[in-house]
Amino acid sequence: MAERESEKPIGMFDSGVGGLTVAREVMRNMPGEKIVYFGDTARVPYGNKSKEIILRYSRQIVRFLQSQDVKAIVVACNTASAFALEEIRHELKIPMIGVVKPGARVACKATRNNRIGVIGTNGTISSGLYTEFIREMNPRAQVVGKACPLFVPLVEENMWKDPVTKEMVRRYLTPLKEQNIDTLILGCTHYPLLRSVIREVMGESVTLVNPAYETACSLKELLAREGLTNEAAPETKKHPYRFFVSDAAETFQKFANSILPVDIENAQKINIEEY
Amino acid sequence: MAERESEKPIGMFDSGVGGLTVAREVMRNMPGEKIVYFGDTARVPYGNKSKEIILRYSRQIVRFLQSQDVKAIVVACNTASAFALEEIRHELKIPMIGVVKPGARVACKATRNNRIGVIGTNGTISSGLYTEFIREMNPRAQVVGKACPLFVPLVEENMWKDPVTKEMVRRYLTPLKEQNIDTLILGCTHYPLLRSVIREVMGESVTLVNPAYETACSLKELLAREGLTNEAAPETKKHPYRFFVSDAAETFQKFANSILPVDIENAQKINIEEY
Repeated sequence: MAERESEKPIGMFDSGVGGLTVAREVMRNMPGEKIVYFGDTARVPYGNKSKEIILRYSRQIVRFLQSQDVKAIVVACNTASAFALEEIRHELKIPMIGVVKPGARVACKATRNNRIGVIGTNGTISSGLYTEFIREMNPRAQVVGKACPLFVPLVEENMWKDPVTKEMVRRYLTPLKEQNIDTLILGCTHYPLLRSVIREVMGESVTLVNPAYETACSLKELLAREGLTNEAAPETKKHPYRFFVSDAAETFQKFANSILPVDIENAQKINIEEY
Repeated sequence: MAERESEKPIGMFDSGVGGLTVAREVMRNMPGEKIVYFGDTARVPYGNKSKEIILRYSRQIVRFLQSQDVKAIVVACNTASAFALEEIRHELKIPMIGVVKPGARVACKATRNNRIGVIGTNGTISSGLYTEFIREMNPRAQVVGKACPLFVPLVEENMWKDPVTKEMVRRYLTPLKEQNIDTLILGCTHYPLLRSVIREVMGESVTLVNPAYETACSLKELLAREGLTNEAAPETKKHPYRFFVSDAAETFQKFANSILPVDIENAQKINIEEY
């Protein structure tokens, strides 16, 4: 029974394509695991929406992922991790992790001057959750948050290295530079795609923390601890990765194929409001 | 009975705040009319979503507006006008108009060289509906469409006159200038707020068509034709304008107060998925 449980897929969700940066890290670091990914492309973006709405949407998605018989759930979205994870986690029998705590933990380890910057959507920054986790682990830390609402649309327009994007990065991040931070958390799953421009603006001396990578590491530890690591032979996994969206499957698929290490064959559209 | 019918409010909806540019024109030009406005702020933006999803959302909203006993419905959103108006109109007993046809009609009157540009969201432009209406009225017209996906987020960031916005306007609109258009339809209800920057880039010789204004004129004619113009004395209308949203009522209210001729007292949040 325990063995069968470990062969089940990992459920993962985001407001859209951003969480694919988390899926990518799981694929790279845990090649034995299956994934069921849901992108809420009909209701993207989550960044400017309220806690109440994000909680309702997340509950619907968790019900859908459970209908796919997943063994654990990764909230691959900072806004949903900030607003919905703590409440929903207690309602479930399977483990559930988000991207915020792993990112906060690594930032605490990386900082030398205890000045940590966090960038994200309005929802993530106004939730104050990164600050809360960081201060719990390191009460001396100073946390400077900054919402960057244009980054998601710029990424979705494929303007990853555009001069306009660079100008907006400069504007949003200059106040953080002036606060003398030495560590910066990329607190939205879209932002790792802007990494090179952010690096250029912030300089080499600032450590950039990518919660997507840290989340994959935390997930690996969690599965091992719970005896849920999939040890089955690879040949049994014919379709290891399945993708579902609430709208515009083709656009999603194109984007996915531009950032994932494997090509995805299709993304299936479902009516998430029915869950 | 006919008199009571005319005293009912006009229902109006958009994906969010953009449709307030239409509400503004109705308030200015038809001061005797009451309005019930719904902004779908929980699911904004509509511009990159599929026809199927926009149709489902629009049907829910129309059911909500009918529960408010409106006498007519204005689809104050170009994407929803393009994707949902024709299908839903036939299901209703009250009149329903959108913003696309009035904008197309005025552009046909304004052009001298029969070269008309249309800018809008991906959804509106890919629907081809402006082109279809324009060619029906003027078969000799050449229509050049261009999707401008960053304009909505730039407006919602209040960057109406920012150099970054000007750079994006220049990029999106240069291909239209090169096509020698003499008339440009601002085919998204957010875009009138970028009018001064668009004017600067396009020059004085190009006529800018604002479908919000044209829709208010069409609505006035429609109500008169159907005997639905409100002739009641103004003192009977204590709360002539009511606003409903699916999320983030406070942000909506702030934005509304920055562009409407009257201050709104509150916006009420409802669960639109229940309709």
